[in-house]
Amino acid sequence: MPSTWGKIFKVSTYGESHGVSVGVIVDGVPAGIPFPQEEIQKDLTRRRPGQNDLTTPRDEDDLVIVESGVFQGKTTGSPILMKVNNKNTIGSDYDEMAHVFRPSHADYTYSEKYGHRAHVGGGRSSVRETIGRVAAAGLARVILERELGIQTVAWVDSVGEIDSRIEENEYPLSRDYVDQFPTRCPKKSSNDEMETLIRKLRDEGDSVGGIVKAVVKNLPPGLGDPVYDKLDADLAKALLSISACKGFEVGSGFQGTRQTGSRHNDEFYIEDGTGKVKTRTNRSGGIQGGISNGMDLVVRAAFKPTSTIKKEQKTVNDSNQETVLKAKGRHDPCVLPRAVPIVEAVINLVLVDAYFYQRALQPKWFLKYANLESIPNQ
Amino acid sequence: MPSTWGKIFKVSTYGESHGVSVGVIVDGVPAGIPFPQEEIQKDLTRRRPGQNDLTTPRDEDDLVIVESGVFQGKTTGSPILMKVNNKNTIGSDYDEMAHVFRPSHADYTYSEKYGHRAHVGGGRSSVRETIGRVAAAGLARVILERELGIQTVAWVDSVGEIDSRIEENEYPLSRDYVDQFPTRCPKKSSNDEMETLIRKLRDEGDSVGGIVKAVVKNLPPGLGDPVYDKLDADLAKALLSISACKGFEVGSGFQGTRQTGSRHNDEFYIEDGTGKVKTRTNRSGGIQGGISNGMDLVVRAAFKPTSTIKKEQKTVNDSNQETVLKAKGRHDPCVLPRAVPIVEAVINLVLVDAYFYQRALQPKWFLKYANLESIPNQ
Amino acid sequence: MPSTWGKIFKVSTYGESHGVSVGVIVDGVPAGIPFPQEEIQKDLTRRRPGQNDLTTPRDEDDLVIVESGVFQGKTTGSPILMKVNNKNTIGSDYDEMAHVFRPSHADYTYSEKYGHRAHVGGGRSSVRETIGRVAAAGLARVILERELGIQTVAWVDSVGEIDSRIEENEYPLSRDYVDQFPTRCPKKSSNDEMETLIRKLRDEGDSVGGIVKAVVKNLPPGLGDPVYDKLDADLAKALLSISACKGFEVGSGFQGTRQTGSRHNDEFYIEDGTGKVKTRTNRSGGIQGGISNGMDLVVRAAFKPTSTIKKEQKTVNDSNQETVLKAKGRHDPCVLPRAVPIVEAVINLVLVDAYFYQRALQPKWFLKYANLESIPNQ
Amino acid sequence: MPSTWGKIFKVSTYGESHGVSVGVIVDGVPAGIPFPQEEIQKDLTRRRPGQNDLTTPRDEDDLVIVESGVFQGKTTGSPILMKVNNKNTIGSDYDEMAHVFRPSHADYTYSEKYGHRAHVGGGRSSVRETIGRVAAAGLARVILERELGIQTVAWVDSVGEIDSRIEENEYPLSRDYVDQFPTRCPKKSSNDEMETLIRKLRDEGDSVGGIVKAVVKNLPPGLGDPVYDKLDADLAKALLSISACKGFEVGSGFQGTRQTGSRHNDEFYIEDGTGKVKTRTNRSGGIQGGISNGMDLVVRAAFKPTSTIKKEQKTVNDSNQETVLKAKGRHDPCVLPRAVPIVEAVINLVLVDAYFYQRALQPKWFLKYANLESIPNQ
Repeated sequence: MPSTWGKIFKVSTYGESHGVSVGVIVDGVPAGIPFPQEEIQKDLTRRRPGQNDLTTPRDEDDLVIVESGVFQGKTTGSPILMKVNNKNTIGSDYDEMAHVFRPSHADYTYSEKYGHRAHVGGGRSSVRETIGRVAAAGLARVILERELGIQTVAWVDSVGEIDSRIEENEYPLSRDYVDQFPTRCPKKSSNDEMETLIRKLRDEGDSVGGIVKAVVKNLPPGLGDPVYDKLDADLAKALLSISACKGFEVGSGFQGTRQTGSRHNDEFYIEDGTGKVKTRTNRSGGIQGGISNGMDLVVRAAFKPTSTIKKEQKTVNDSNQETVLKAKGRHDPCVLPRAVPIVEAVINLVLVDAYFYQRALQPKWFLKYANLESIPNQ
Repeated sequence: MPSTWGKIFKVSTYGESHGVSVGVIVDGVPAGIPFPQEEIQKDLTRRRPGQNDLTTPRDEDDLVIVESGVFQGKTTGSPILMKVNNKNTIGSDYDEMAHVFRPSHADYTYSEKYGHRAHVGGGRSSVRETIGRVAAAGLARVILERELGIQTVAWVDSVGEIDSRIEENEYPLSRDYVDQFPTRCPKKSSNDEMETLIRKLRDEGDSVGGIVKAVVKNLPPGLGDPVYDKLDADLAKALLSISACKGFEVGSGFQGTRQTGSRHNDEFYIEDGTGKVKTRTNRSGGIQGGISNGMDLVVRAAFKPTSTIKKEQKTVNDSNQETVLKAKGRHDPCVLPRAVPIVEAVINLVLVDAYFYQRALQPKWFLKYANLESIPNQ
Repeated sequence: MPSTWGKIFKVSTYGESHGVSVGVIVDGVPAGIPFPQEEIQKDLTRRRPGQNDLTTPRDEDDLVIVESGVFQGKTTGSPILMKVNNKNTIGSDYDEMAHVFRPSHADYTYSEKYGHRAHVGGGRSSVRETIGRVAAAGLARVILERELGIQTVAWVDSVGEIDSRIEENEYPLSRDYVDQFPTRCPKKSSNDEMETLIRKLRDEGDSVGGIVKAVVKNLPPGLGDPVYDKLDADLAKALLSISACKGFEVGSGFQGTRQTGSRHNDEFYIEDGTGKVKTRTNRSGGIQGGISNGMDLVVRAAFKPTSTIKKEQKTVNDSNQETVLKAKGRHDPCVLPRAVPIVEAVINLVLVDAYFYQRALQPKWFLKYANLESIPNQ
Repeated sequence: MPSTWGKIFKVSTYGESHGVSVGVIVDGVPAGIPFPQEEIQKDLTRRRPGQNDLTTPRDEDDLVIVESGVFQGKTTGSPILMKVNNKNTIGSDYDEMAHVFRPSHADYTYSEKYGHRAHVGGGRSSVRETIGRVAAAGLARVILERELGIQTVAWVDSVGEIDSRIEENEYPLSRDYVDQFPTRCPKKSSNDEMETLIRKLRDEGDSVGGIVKAVVKNLPPGLGDPVYDKLDADLAKALLSISACKGFEVGSGFQGTRQTGSRHNDEFYIEDGTGKVKTRTNRSGGIQGGISNGMDLVVRAAFKPTSTIKKEQKTVNDSNQETVLKAKGRHDPCVLPRAVPIVEAVINLVLVDAYFYQRALQPKWFLKYANLESIPNQ
């Protein structure tokens, strides 16, 4: 069950919701970096369930524990183990579902693949798996911010039929701003509609999907590689590796296919004052030929409605019989608000690895674009 | 410039359109497999430009040459080098563009990354890079067909605003059927509209985008892994690694985000006669929790309009000056028809690797699902 | 600091002796295997210091804690986190050495590489790093024993000038037999001499090196690959990756270079009764062309004398000054007895990965050589 | 059949002696490096058989052909395909051996692994496989020389019982000097004895083994990693991956095991004038804790006598019958002279990859140790 990401900044996660802990080993971390434990904790806290009544009430502290790779507040260059203990025990709710395959859930496919159920809480398909990635990405985020000035901000763009239609000039500038909105849709009117819809569906035992949009600012040109490890290809894989994600777009995405080249192409120009090469539009979404072009990187990820719902559904059980299921337990009626920090996390993991790989092969690029004063002495 | 795909069936491509040849080393091929050179040639011929007046007239034979790994018609277990010589020489058309960055092309980003242009013909960003993948995938396709009965068929679903709206019960059953249509949209009325549009835009020196849809039939349940190497995550990366691809969907994709869980979930049932577990709908697109569920795998990929067009465009050059460009040379006004075999190729590369990985870890699954008589003796 | 081993059975270790814990994530474990926690504990206990007066008195329990990947006594197919908490705190002994580079130790090279010392207890260069590998290898060992009948046994072949000269017909048949000897040299006379020498050197504050020999029995022919991942090449890397190892031999090794081909070659014959192909001698050490040939695999690993000694030595400090050092703390006067289980561990990690890789690519081989009844159902 | 080496500077070889060509794709090469085709050809020519009467008379030109990744004399950052066409056709000599397993050769193990013979000329076990590595390493060598000043020189240290006993102060300073000696043993008296022995054994249809020693000069401290990718562990794997290599030593190797720590440890001191940290002896062989320490890196590799000999030998055939073999064809009576450039090649491949990895993670180290003027602009 491959659980490792990255060519150089390698992130290996472990853990299921029913186990003792979930966590990650991060290997390929430069030595001497001030270890940002508070920032990592902040990211984990943002990912945590039970933050308001829109998400599952499951309450976990999700306090990060660091067991290696950090000494006297700095990274040592050794693998860093970060983990969060699982507080929640297995409820009897799950027992009833132990032999029934939840529709559109990983139950049946796990069973066919491994010969056993993705047990209680979903095994590795549980969203708790993302704790390891979010912890690792907290470190990645701080490295990217310090050394390149990169900022990644994601938000909820739509929920069900409610489309916020936030335009480029309205993009939120910070994670804190997004967090002021319970749905993490940073447009008051849309947020309110979404809140109402999510509460209604929750009360009906139903769920709904939506779209997360993310922007990366201050990305220098030159990250990503032209063939398999195109920056957008790595981002697509990263986003689709989040549970419930069913689609990915960069820049104009599916809509862009409807246009002609003469309308769709992004015209280059020289920015007054800076002399920098820019594009007047950004249908490329900041990536051309798999490589960042210095404009904002813009991606969107589609999340299906939560599959575990309390409404009655027809299904089959593991004795090959048809049956009926009314799921119990606590489930997010809408994963979107909690998907936001996870989307940011996987984007930052992709970026930090592309950055280190570029550093290995094109060091003059590094000298040109990185803030050298922030690089730890070795 | 990472150019290798796969954990076990490893595909390493090389070559640019201006070089001597383009090709691939495939490593991780079992010994004793009858080498399907004709099938591979057929796949390369389908990918070739100049097949009708809808695509670039650049004419290449694209005859596959095998230089290792095959002896007396069978694979030896050694790495297989397959290549195609480049026949076409560099035209003077390119010289004029040598210092101008084509809008929405990889010219500028290559220049920033490597300090030089993605030379004439696009360097590794040229679609000729896919020759190596298509050749490798021809071998993968034959293995999947023989050992598991898997069939992958892709087609053009839309071009510009022309949406074929081909329903599930109209999905084409074979590549040959799709190839009867010059646009590779297997619906006569849509194909005709698309032909007219593409010719019109070609004459105007313009281009257009579109969507390719692909279905994989007879995929057994159990392929793909629950975390990073989810089958849909690997497919997303594979598709986005094709030039001009800007979006990916599996199953209900972006549209599915608008629904409630109770409407979106795929109800399980027991199929009469076979006793197999099936779903009544297939919004999951054949994948649940990153693992195939035995239903048709259904994905879509968005391709932007070709960026190199003959219409005049504003841009900048590599001396940091604003200028105007009218591209010359031969370019596809619409990449969609030629994208079809490439989409099939990358899907088959993902599947064969997932299959071999599953074979390593869950051999009883292999004994249950594979046609053992087709497995070569070792 | 790459800390991952294996193509399929992937072992990622973490931890330093001064940290909270040391351990490992094992990914690529088939589902449904009865988890051999007792066997793993047994292997960890064999590796533990303080077992008799020949090794460092540092006393750790080294109790394995499993935090994921096992449910109801069986592997789930998910990554398995195994760890051992560090009980021992940092002594003041280390403070005195904090700024002095111990001769032939990793202190200086760590400092040049990372800009900091391989802190107290040696950072990742500490032998405690091997706990993760030994735990992972315990699982590998049980899989190899059950599915292929493979047995790996290592022992101390020489200490200093004391060479046991154990001949092929005297090879010990089990780990238990070897463990009856305090030095793990399974020849009474040599063991006694070694005990005397080690105690004498310990009392003098000095140390000594030696050689570990290992045999793998019942290895089927066909494991290992002809080029980079030759079985002996992977074993060489595995053994050299153990601290203090300075040399590796397979079969006749360095002595074999002195012979002619006609004397050195291993004559093939057909074994009476079984009809199996065997060799009359085993100068190949069970490997030909990088692939196991069905004879005993025989390797030797050279371990230098422990570099940290209490005798006074000239050296330099991290202020670039010459100085004198008398190391304090607890150190093995001879690492050989404790190296034995570590050597077995890394061999078993190499073998299980070669086995799973072979299973992926040559499944008929698997059907021929594996005990299919021991393979868990999936 | 894994045929790829390296984390960043990735070398993927292909080809058998009976195929069309043998060669390599090198990926992970920085853009803008002047491509050293003459230097690469020089390395290939040194590796070529038939240079004098001590080696197999098989005559191949081994002219390198470059089919991608180089444009106008510079690397483009794209994968580089280098190949050499096979001129020699399959002789009838091989037919006679087609069903007989040569003792101590890869014939039998290939047959058990793949179900077919390592055909004529040895398949991938042929020494022609090393052409790809030597070509790739020629590029690596030039990068290491230009950017770090590193020089790798290997020579024949012993043949059979003839031990040159070349002391540290007699180490040859250049490849050219070594090449003046037909045996590549750079000590006149030993070379002459070796020549006589090799000719005698050749005439008797026999063969002999020997030891290659290699030194790397000007290696900066800090290369290599403390756990699995120790520099000596990677070198051990690299050397053992050369056909016929049966043993590896770094520094004092097996002899060092006989000493006490107080005698074996390398005393540090401050070098007059430079202020550099040095060691008075070099039993560590330039590596401590898996990391280079700035002293000469010194390794030795044991090569067994060539297994294919013309003398009559007892063996078995692929019909499971005992038989007798007198090998025909052209075979090196002693591989040692030709092993020298191959040993240098694999060492340089290990070093360049360690260098690029270090550059990714510890860029300040790069700024300190590399000749920045030689780094191409990007």
